[in-house]
Amino acid sequence: MDHSASSVHERRRVKRLPREVRERQILDAAVRVFSDHGYHNASMDEISEVAGVSKPMIYAYLGSKEDLFAACIHREATQLLEAVAAGVRTELPADMQLWHGLGAFFEYVGAHRESWRVLHRQAISQGGPFSEELLDMRRQAISLVDTLLVRVATKEGLDRGATESLAAALVGAAESLADWWLDNPDVPSRAVASRLMNLAWIGFGGLVEGNTWHPSED
Amino acid sequence: MDHSASSVHERRRVKRLPREVRERQILDAAVRVFSDHGYHNASMDEISEVAGVSKPMIYAYLGSKEDLFAACIHREATQLLEAVAAGVRTELPADMQLWHGLGAFFEYVGAHRESWRVLHRQAISQGGPFSEELLDMRRQAISLVDTLLVRVATKEGLDRGATESLAAALVGAAESLADWWLDNPDVPSRAVASRLMNLAWIGFGGLVEGNTWHPSED
Repeated sequence: MDHSASSVHERRRVKRLPREVRERQILDAAVRVFSDHGYHNASMDEISEVAGVSKPMIYAYLGSKEDLFAACIHREATQLLEAVAAGVRTELPADMQLWHGLGAFFEYVGAHRESWRVLHRQAISQGGPFSEELLDMRRQAISLVDTLLVRVATKEGLDRGATESLAAALVGAAESLADWWLDNPDVPSRAVASRLMNLAWIGFGGLVEGNTWHPSED
Repeated sequence: MDHSASSVHERRRVKRLPREVRERQILDAAVRVFSDHGYHNASMDEISEVAGVSKPMIYAYLGSKEDLFAACIHREATQLLEAVAAGVRTELPADMQLWHGLGAFFEYVGAHRESWRVLHRQAISQGGPFSEELLDMRRQAISLVDTLLVRVATKEGLDRGATESLAAALVGAAESLADWWLDNPDVPSRAVASRLMNLAWIGFGGLVEGNTWHPSED
């Protein structure tokens, strides 16, 4: 083994940032640039400039612009789901679990509006594999909420067979409300979460108590 | 004017179906084929065969496959919104208005599952102008529900500033529940509508009565 070559290599490695740090820098920059300009108008030049990482290194680490966009969506979806899952505290009563989950969701979206814009609007407007990633995130979110509702249903009177559909409705409501929030950013995150909690829980609360609504005419 | 040429023209016109009938046949066939195979795998040959209309006539009337897909989405979105708007009966109490609106939505989706699959899933998975059409439909649906909630808010205690966000939540809930329904088609349309009505109205009902939920801990 050539000792001098090895020490040159060592010196270079010391100077270099670890790959995961570089990748984080690149992804952070990419999310910002995709959020500002949209997928089509985002340039690898600008991502390289914002990240402070050369274009060849971006290509070497994360691939093409398409790969980079997919990596952004995957990372943001994963982090969002983790933030929501971390917010749920199973030792609390069901309403408090839901409140914490919704709170964590809107807090994350509020603190990462660029992520949400890329994840939600731009993934939808690009379609293809990007929208697959979004649909997959939605399925995971529905499963997370369903788990919560099943726990409630076991103890209370909620119809066991209906929990997954109600979870789907609630996830859709949260997603659509967060989309509305992008255009109405002045409402504080807690107020947005509270609106959905009121809509959802006074509703679920009634169901848990065995109340149901019937049309008055037929 | 050449009389004989004119009568040949007349005879040909009598044999021909009116353009709007042909266009309807083509669009009906296209929705079916797009729904069955997805946008990419759908072929103009199959659409032509199902419609009983020659390919050159399809191109002449409705343009390329992309144009045809856009025309499908536009038509299905318009018909769905019209069906829902027709379901709302402003002379009834607010809960009954909402019930009829939700009922009309799920009845339409149940009776036109192919339309809904194309409109919702495939428009999202294609992205671009198709998802624009979908977002536009969503905006119109939110505005429709908001109008209903504003009427309620004027009379009752519902926070006037919150109606649009609650409308966005409700539209998202309906959309996501209808998406869930594509994978769970055995649930009858009335049962799906009733689940969302229970979730939404016992919730909205509580809000109208001035009830609000507060977290018990902070």
